[in-house]
Amino acid sequence: MIKQYIQENESRMLEELFSLIRIPSISSESEHHADMLRCAERWKELLISAGVDSAEVMPSDGNPMVFAEKIVNAQAPTVLIYGHYDVMPVEPLELWKSEPFEPVIRDGHIWARGADDDKGQSFIQAKAFEYLVKNGLLKHNVKFILEGEEEIGSPSLETFCEKHKELLKADIILVSDTSMLSAELPSLTTGLRGLSYWQVEVTGPNRDLHSGHFGGAVMNPINALCKMIAQLTDADGRITVPHFYDDVEEVPAEEREMIAHIPFNEEKYKAAIGIKEVFGEKGYSTLERNSCRPSFDCCGIWGGYTGEGAKTVIPSKAFAKISTRLVPHQNSEKIAKLVAEHLQSIAPVGVTVKVDYLHGGEGYVCPISLPAYKAAEKGFEAAFGQRPLPVRRGGSIPIIATFEKVLGIKTILMGFGLESNAIHSPNENIPLDMIRRGIEAVVNFHLFYDE
Amino acid sequence: MIKQYIQENESRMLEELFSLIRIPSISSESEHHADMLRCAERWKELLISAGVDSAEVMPSDGNPMVFAEKIVNAQAPTVLIYGHYDVMPVEPLELWKSEPFEPVIRDGHIWARGADDDKGQSFIQAKAFEYLVKNGLLKHNVKFILEGEEEIGSPSLETFCEKHKELLKADIILVSDTSMLSAELPSLTTGLRGLSYWQVEVTGPNRDLHSGHFGGAVMNPINALCKMIAQLTDADGRITVPHFYDDVEEVPAEEREMIAHIPFNEEKYKAAIGIKEVFGEKGYSTLERNSCRPSFDCCGIWGGYTGEGAKTVIPSKAFAKISTRLVPHQNSEKIAKLVAEHLQSIAPVGVTVKVDYLHGGEGYVCPISLPAYKAAEKGFEAAFGQRPLPVRRGGSIPIIATFEKVLGIKTILMGFGLESNAIHSPNENIPLDMIRRGIEAVVNFHLFYDE
Repeated sequence: MIKQYIQENESRMLEELFSLIRIPSISSESEHHADMLRCAERWKELLISAGVDSAEVMPSDGNPMVFAEKIVNAQAPTVLIYGHYDVMPVEPLELWKSEPFEPVIRDGHIWARGADDDKGQSFIQAKAFEYLVKNGLLKHNVKFILEGEEEIGSPSLETFCEKHKELLKADIILVSDTSMLSAELPSLTTGLRGLSYWQVEVTGPNRDLHSGHFGGAVMNPINALCKMIAQLTDADGRITVPHFYDDVEEVPAEEREMIAHIPFNEEKYKAAIGIKEVFGEKGYSTLERNSCRPSFDCCGIWGGYTGEGAKTVIPSKAFAKISTRLVPHQNSEKIAKLVAEHLQSIAPVGVTVKVDYLHGGEGYVCPISLPAYKAAEKGFEAAFGQRPLPVRRGGSIPIIATFEKVLGIKTILMGFGLESNAIHSPNENIPLDMIRRGIEAVVNFHLFYDE
Repeated sequence: MIKQYIQENESRMLEELFSLIRIPSISSESEHHADMLRCAERWKELLISAGVDSAEVMPSDGNPMVFAEKIVNAQAPTVLIYGHYDVMPVEPLELWKSEPFEPVIRDGHIWARGADDDKGQSFIQAKAFEYLVKNGLLKHNVKFILEGEEEIGSPSLETFCEKHKELLKADIILVSDTSMLSAELPSLTTGLRGLSYWQVEVTGPNRDLHSGHFGGAVMNPINALCKMIAQLTDADGRITVPHFYDDVEEVPAEEREMIAHIPFNEEKYKAAIGIKEVFGEKGYSTLERNSCRPSFDCCGIWGGYTGEGAKTVIPSKAFAKISTRLVPHQNSEKIAKLVAEHLQSIAPVGVTVKVDYLHGGEGYVCPISLPAYKAAEKGFEAAFGQRPLPVRRGGSIPIIATFEKVLGIKTILMGFGLESNAIHSPNENIPLDMIRRGIEAVVNFHLFYDE
C-alpha cells in the first residue's frame, strides 16, 4: 500500500523536497537571513498540502519556527515531530561535484546540501504523515515543529518551548536527524553526545611583525595557540582539562559487551574515510570512542599569512574554533567554564587569550522499554526486514535534552542517515531508497503506536 | 651642498619615488606579473635620468633585473648598488589607514607599501648617485642591480649572477635594505640571519567529517598539526629539531659584551609592540635573541571552518607556513632537510604529512675592518652626527651571502629603516627626514670611499 503510494507520487514528492533544498538556508551566515524566512514559508505550504489542520510560521528570538498540527481525536495521544530547516555552510565549494543548492539525482542518490541533514529526513516524516492522512489511517494526533537554528545550537528553541508548552504538549517526540549503522544494519539511536563549542583568540604583538627583526624575542601567537591546543589532549587521546572527566559515566559492562557484538569492520571504516590508522582514547574501541566517550576537536584554525608563496611574518593574532563532545551526565555549561579557565591558565607568556563560548548542549539517553521505542523498532523491522540495533551515537542534538527538561517529553530518534551521506561535508547526499524505506518505517511506527 | 640640493629637488624626487610605489609589484602574487615589468621599466627610466651611462631591463629566470652603470674611470674601483623593486603582500587590508599603493605624506612620513622596503631605501641610493653625477663629484664607477624577487627569496638571482659575473664585477656592494637601532642610535648592520621556510600540509580523512559521528575515533589533522608545531620549540624557547644547533656559532663573549652596552629599553620595546612580556631562548637577552640566535616562527596556519559562527567538522586537511631564522655557519639547505625529516618523524598516527621547502638562504657577517665599512661609518657620522654602532640584525637578505659565494664581493649594509616603519605590515612608512639623511650619508660614503 505505502510502497505503491510512494511509487505513484514520487516525482511530485521529489519536486517538493527539491523546492526546500534549493533555498540556501545556512543559519550560521547572516547573509542568508531572507532564505531562512523563505524556507520556513515553504515548509508551511508543504505541511498544509500534506494534510495538517493548520500551519503557521511563528516568530522566535531568532529564525522563525514552523508549527503545524492535525488533531484527529482530543482523547488520543499526540506525536510531536521535530526537524530543522537550516543547513550547514557548504565550503569548500570546489570539492562539490554539483551545485550544493541545485539537487541532482545521480546513481540513485540525491546530491545537495540538506539532502539528508535535515531537509531530506524531515521530509520523510512529512510524507509518511501525508500517506496516513490521505488514506484515513491516522488514529492519533500529530504536531510538527521545525526550527531554523539547529546547526548553530538552537539558541532560541528553549525559550520558544517555555513560551509554548501548551501548544507543544505531546506524549512522545519523533525525530529523523540521526543515522543508522549502515544500510544493511538498521539501528535506532538510543543515546547522543552533548557538545560545547568555543572560539579562541590569541593576541601577541599589536601588529604583524617582521619575523626577522622580532623572531626569537617575542611569543608568536600561532606558536602559542598550537601549544595550547596540543596540550588539551595527551598521547593516550585523553582530554587534559582538570575535572573534565569528573561526571563522565563509565560505559556499563553490558553495553560494552553489546557494542563489541555490533558487526563493525574497522578496515572498511578506515578505507571509507581514507586513513591508515584510527586514533582515540586508550582502552576503548572505535565504536565506543565515537559514541560513549567524550572527544576534543579543533574544527577550524587561522592566523598569519595564508596566501600563495611565503611571507615572513609574526602575526598579531591567531584564532581557533574548538569543540568537545560530551557524554550523558556531563554538563555543557560546566565544561564550557572548565575549558575556558584552563585555556587561560595555560596561555603562554607574552600573549593574551580570549575565549568565547559559542554554544553547547547536553547528551541524551532513550530507554528502550518505552512503548514508542517498541513501535519504532517494529516500524524499522517492517521497512528493513530486520530488527534495528539500539545504539548510542556520537553526534549531538542538544535540543533533545532540552525537550526533556522543558517539556518533559522523551524523544524517539528514527534516523535514516548513512555515514556515506557526507552530512556537513561537500557532496552531501541521500539514497532515494532510504527515503522510500524511511517513509515506510515511519508509516509503520504510527500504525504500531496505536496498538 | 647636498642638503641644499635635496631641498631644491625634493618635490620632484618625491614624485619620482611615488611613481615607483604606485606600481603594486607584489612578487608573491602571480596576478601582479605585469606590475613587475612596469616597475622594472620605471626604475630604468629613473636611473637614466639620475645620470647612468646606460640602463636596461634584463631577463632572468623569473622577474626581470634592472641593470645600470656609470663608468667614470676604468682604473677606479667600482661600487655595485643592490636593491629590490618587489614588495610584500598588503593583507590585512582593513588595517591600513590609507591605500597601500597610493602614497600619502602625513606627519612628516610617507605611508605606503614599499615606502621603506625597499623602494624608499633603494631610492636613497639613486638620489645620492644623482647628486654626485650632477655635481661632478663621482670619482669611482657605480653599477646598479635591482631585482624583483627579494621578498620571495631571490630564486633567480644566483643564476643571474653566475651568468653575468663580468657585468656585475665590482669591489664592494652597497645595500640599503636594513634598519638602524633607532633614529637616535644610528647603526650599521654587520650581520644578518639566514632563513629556511616551509609549507606543511597535514592530511587526515579523505573528506571533512562530522565531528559528532567521528570525533574521538580519528586523528584530527588540525589537532595533529598543532601537536607538531608545539613540539618544535621547548619551554626554554629552544628549537627541538635534532642537530639544529650543531653548526650554530656561539656568540663571542666580546660581542655579547658590546650588545649588553647598546642602549636598549625593554619596557619601551614591549610598549611599542603592545606585549606584556618578551619570550625567547633562555640564557640570552632580547637583542641577542633577535639577531645572533636562531628562531622558529609559524608565519601562517589554516584549516577547517574559519567563517562566522560554529561548524562541527573534522577537516580533511590543515596547513601551516613555518620558518626558521638561521645564524652564520648554519646551512639553510641542511636545516631544510633536518626540519622536513623531523616533521615526518613526529607526524601523529592517523595523518600523513607533506613538507614543501619554499625558500631559504644563508646568514652573513661583514668585517668592520673593511675600508668600505669605514667609509660607510664616516658617511653615517656626517649625516647623523655620531658614529654608528656595528650591530648584527635578525632579518635575512639571503642574496648577500650569495653575492659573496658567486661574485666573491663583500657587502656594506647601509640601512636607514626604523622599527616603526612597519615593513611587511599594514601602514608601512618612512620618515621624510630619514630619506634626506640617508641621501646625505650615502653621498658622504662615496666621497670618503675615494680617500
